[in-house]
Amino acid sequence: MAEKNRDIKALFLGPKGENEKFFSDMLTYLTGDHLSWRRYFHPDDPPAVTPEDMSDRAYQDTLQTTRETLVDLAAKLQEASMPWFSPRYLGHMNSDTLMAASLGYMLTILYNPNNCAYEGSPATTPLEIEVGKQLAALMGYDPRRAWGHITSGGTVANYEGLWVARNLKSVPLAVKRVMPGLVSGLSDRELGNVPHDAVLDLLDSVRAAGLMDDLLAASVRGEGVASHESGMLLVPCTKHYSWTKAADILGIGQRNMIPIRVRDDYRMDTEDLRRILGRLADAGERVLAVVAVAGTTEEGAVDEIHEIAGIRKDMERRGLCFHLHIDAAYGGYARSVFVDGEGRFLPAEEIRKTMLESGVTGPDSRWPSPEVHAAFEAFPEAESITVDPHKLGYIPYAAGAILMRDRRALDLISYFASYVFEKGDDTPMLLGSHIMEGSKAGAVVAAVWAAHRVCPLHIGGYGRVIGSSMEGASIFHRALVAAGSMKARGRTFRVRPLAAPDTNIVVFALNEEGNTSLEIMNRLNRALYEQCSYKSGPVYTNDFIVSKTSLSRSEYGDAPIRFIGDLGIPTGEWTGDAEVFVLRSCVLTPLLSMGEGGDSQAELLLGTIRSKLETALERLVN
Amino acid sequence: MAEKNRDIKALFLGPKGENEKFFSDMLTYLTGDHLSWRRYFHPDDPPAVTPEDMSDRAYQDTLQTTRETLVDLAAKLQEASMPWFSPRYLGHMNSDTLMAASLGYMLTILYNPNNCAYEGSPATTPLEIEVGKQLAALMGYDPRRAWGHITSGGTVANYEGLWVARNLKSVPLAVKRVMPGLVSGLSDRELGNVPHDAVLDLLDSVRAAGLMDDLLAASVRGEGVASHESGMLLVPCTKHYSWTKAADILGIGQRNMIPIRVRDDYRMDTEDLRRILGRLADAGERVLAVVAVAGTTEEGAVDEIHEIAGIRKDMERRGLCFHLHIDAAYGGYARSVFVDGEGRFLPAEEIRKTMLESGVTGPDSRWPSPEVHAAFEAFPEAESITVDPHKLGYIPYAAGAILMRDRRALDLISYFASYVFEKGDDTPMLLGSHIMEGSKAGAVVAAVWAAHRVCPLHIGGYGRVIGSSMEGASIFHRALVAAGSMKARGRTFRVRPLAAPDTNIVVFALNEEGNTSLEIMNRLNRALYEQCSYKSGPVYTNDFIVSKTSLSRSEYGDAPIRFIGDLGIPTGEWTGDAEVFVLRSCVLTPLLSMGEGGDSQAELLLGTIRSKLETALERLVN
Repeated sequence: MAEKNRDIKALFLGPKGENEKFFSDMLTYLTGDHLSWRRYFHPDDPPAVTPEDMSDRAYQDTLQTTRETLVDLAAKLQEASMPWFSPRYLGHMNSDTLMAASLGYMLTILYNPNNCAYEGSPATTPLEIEVGKQLAALMGYDPRRAWGHITSGGTVANYEGLWVARNLKSVPLAVKRVMPGLVSGLSDRELGNVPHDAVLDLLDSVRAAGLMDDLLAASVRGEGVASHESGMLLVPCTKHYSWTKAADILGIGQRNMIPIRVRDDYRMDTEDLRRILGRLADAGERVLAVVAVAGTTEEGAVDEIHEIAGIRKDMERRGLCFHLHIDAAYGGYARSVFVDGEGRFLPAEEIRKTMLESGVTGPDSRWPSPEVHAAFEAFPEAESITVDPHKLGYIPYAAGAILMRDRRALDLISYFASYVFEKGDDTPMLLGSHIMEGSKAGAVVAAVWAAHRVCPLHIGGYGRVIGSSMEGASIFHRALVAAGSMKARGRTFRVRPLAAPDTNIVVFALNEEGNTSLEIMNRLNRALYEQCSYKSGPVYTNDFIVSKTSLSRSEYGDAPIRFIGDLGIPTGEWTGDAEVFVLRSCVLTPLLSMGEGGDSQAELLLGTIRSKLETALERLVN
Repeated sequence: MAEKNRDIKALFLGPKGENEKFFSDMLTYLTGDHLSWRRYFHPDDPPAVTPEDMSDRAYQDTLQTTRETLVDLAAKLQEASMPWFSPRYLGHMNSDTLMAASLGYMLTILYNPNNCAYEGSPATTPLEIEVGKQLAALMGYDPRRAWGHITSGGTVANYEGLWVARNLKSVPLAVKRVMPGLVSGLSDRELGNVPHDAVLDLLDSVRAAGLMDDLLAASVRGEGVASHESGMLLVPCTKHYSWTKAADILGIGQRNMIPIRVRDDYRMDTEDLRRILGRLADAGERVLAVVAVAGTTEEGAVDEIHEIAGIRKDMERRGLCFHLHIDAAYGGYARSVFVDGEGRFLPAEEIRKTMLESGVTGPDSRWPSPEVHAAFEAFPEAESITVDPHKLGYIPYAAGAILMRDRRALDLISYFASYVFEKGDDTPMLLGSHIMEGSKAGAVVAAVWAAHRVCPLHIGGYGRVIGSSMEGASIFHRALVAAGSMKARGRTFRVRPLAAPDTNIVVFALNEEGNTSLEIMNRLNRALYEQCSYKSGPVYTNDFIVSKTSLSRSEYGDAPIRFIGDLGIPTGEWTGDAEVFVLRSCVLTPLLSMGEGGDSQAELLLGTIRSKLETALERLVN
């Protein structure tokens, strides 16, 4: 059981730099290898720097300045950086990164390819196309039909998904202007509700007729948002704030965003979604897109995508069609737990059995729940998906990705369309003309590619790493539930997790037994947070680090009532601009579920929280 | 003279890895230093990997897979990467990168900060604010009033500049709805033509009244582009294609973009600009922004920003106000040649004298021209400027930057406004909520910071490196002019540069003496390009590498007529969808003007082109 576990230990540099020798040797080898490459390029060319140059004072001074600058940079980094590498860090979505990714990234910086144009990245543009296909397949898409590429992060990926949706929405009306015969008999309402695939078929017809340029000019990209009604954007209230920015940037307007309520499990309230869509359908309003979140930023909750897809089918029968985008910036890579090496989506029982047998999880594991399992299975129902390699892909910053089910949609956001793909080749000559960004580091793409090679995107590769992190979160959650309360300075405090984690984020709060004031409870948890963060001094000397968030009534509605109730706060406190301050631990480290065994790790965690609480109480008094 | 030159030689790794020892020693030291940092974090914590673990088969296998993956990656990179490092590479906007930047980047990957939130980057968010101020000061802005930050590239920086302009344009009408007293008496036309600073003053009043949220909701970000007429976007026809994407993404619509002609020096035809603006003023139309380009992508031409700023003043007197953005993605860093350590903008004579005395340029140098000098001096007239560290900043990808003259504009694109800056501090707690992107690598910011520290942003730092590259381009250009023609296979070919370079891009073409067919000339130059690019086989074995572009009549109008005429092509060939294929050399390397002296380098270049021409002619025959 323990044996198979150990390969995780060979993937990371390690909290003590356990794999230093391997890492340093590889780095030395790769750097030397690069230098040989330079030297063997026209070996007869004379060197640009001679020994005489090197003895020059200015030369020496310049090197010394470089040395001092880098040593100063190292000092700044050491003084203030977050110890992501340690299992003591249970804060934001960070942990140690894969050695293959860090080394691949560092190596490729020396070659410095720019994936914007093939001519600047003959080595790494093909790698980007390759990882795009790998991630598309991971999402359950057919990689031959799909399209995917790396972005600078989930924010830009979300923009790009919505950009495609907005432009696609305007196509049927543009077709009516350019090739009316293709949409004859359709009412304006019907033109605003053509299903995704049917719009792409329309594009095929327009392309075949050689009228693509005319069509694009008549679409929203040519005429602007003022001439094309986009429709409403529906997002759960747990959305990342990039969606609010997206509605601004893309010219849609924030008043055209409708927030969907969440339930007290912090998943989208699908009944609220159904109600709102029904109302819009009745009113004949247009719906641009519904965004589902797989791994909410604060809670790690996974919206029930299977339910949402079902509701969409119902609405299509009522003549209401819209784009479905999954913001799986956080949770996307977790789909690797659910698939095997052949891309088969595994039954939940088989997943648990495999993880138990390979020592990733213990016998108490109940993850994934039926709803989480069904949600991940339904991923390919969405037209586009955001997923971040720099989150559960354990890649250094900055790497997001956007995946689209049907690559035909690419023409809607492409420039110089005729150069998209060279004949018989999947590699575009000017990637920058088919994506939102322009110049982009080939180095980070190489990092993703190397990571995927070492950790394949299935239950035996990434699945094992991410499965371990899920198990770590589960252990932490169970320990909080089992503890129920803790004593400090002779007083008793309830401790409650927000909800059973859908992924690996554990949110929790404490309240003193008998306190019924939300404000007092918030003050306690804020004081506790300050002890577990950079607020109490350099994080480097801290022994436990968490993050925090606030769930406000204005955003979350009544969802937190059950939670604060469990902590002893009456519903009456949940009024006006109330908000509840909570502690948040993203358990990305796979180490929490390893080592001395889950229970003792959990004991350690609870003990640390208890001692932090002691200090926090002292500070609250003073 | 030679002495001061030499410090450039200590800045780069070098075409032969001349500075290998320094580079490798620093990398080893910095990696070891990082590993110590890991080990000294809670030294009592047990290691996560024991010697027993390391002897495990699965552990060894995983390391071996990582090793093989990285060696394979290195092989792929070596097989196809571009030899940016060599002075033989005179193609795209690439060269060797600064050692300080590469090492700072590689080091910081190990700490992996995310500059999106301060909590994830306590070390590198302050560095980003610092380089933002440095770049703002370089542009001639007051760094205390300005705002700047790193983006993933110039494309995103351009979007952000236009995003601000679009949102600002909608403010006066929104003020009319929220605090009508502030704009009483203004007609709709006047509301669409409030000068930039006056709009920011209006924002101050709204902020003071506590009505900022209401105002933003009533502005275009709240209501969408459909409810706020943005106006026309004027860009020269030499624009980067990111502007076409910007008009799409921001919902403005491409039909609301007006191209400005360029003259045969490839600078914006300012008379055309004046004419178009006059027409729009007469028609009472709204103008969103004028974009000036400082260093066009293909030609390196610098628009006459001083003239454009003057035209703007004239138009303001006629009641037409608009945002002025400079796309200095390419040329921005070159402003460091024009300023001294105190930020004083230097007279052209003083620049030439300093560069000559420090051995950067030779006695024949005429750069900068009076127009280029005046254009750079006028930079601070613009409200926002794009500049790319990964171009003339000699930083590895991906690093762009956006600079704004007045940071008050930030509120127009900010979320969670109350947290922009902590009291008394310049560092925002959530940078991601004030910029377009979200997660972003602290590592690339560290690279920029380290580079600026080693190479200050003035004539004695970056100015020396960039000045050398300008001199290299100048030498190449003069050699082409001096040659006039070259013989190959017993035939004579004219050789002509497109224009005297405003910066360090040299564009040129050849034509056989007596040929009057544009098509035949294009075929010749295409064949020559194929000999000087990846098209003729692996670039690694090539001895001279250029890039290419096509200037089409549809984009460039009549600007190329003089150029093709010089080559012997009659004006009559310039009809329909004509385009002229040209070779393009971005001379970023500072080495071309060094070494054996400019003249012999130029001789070498011409000799190489001549021998390439021989091969090209052979291939054209076969």
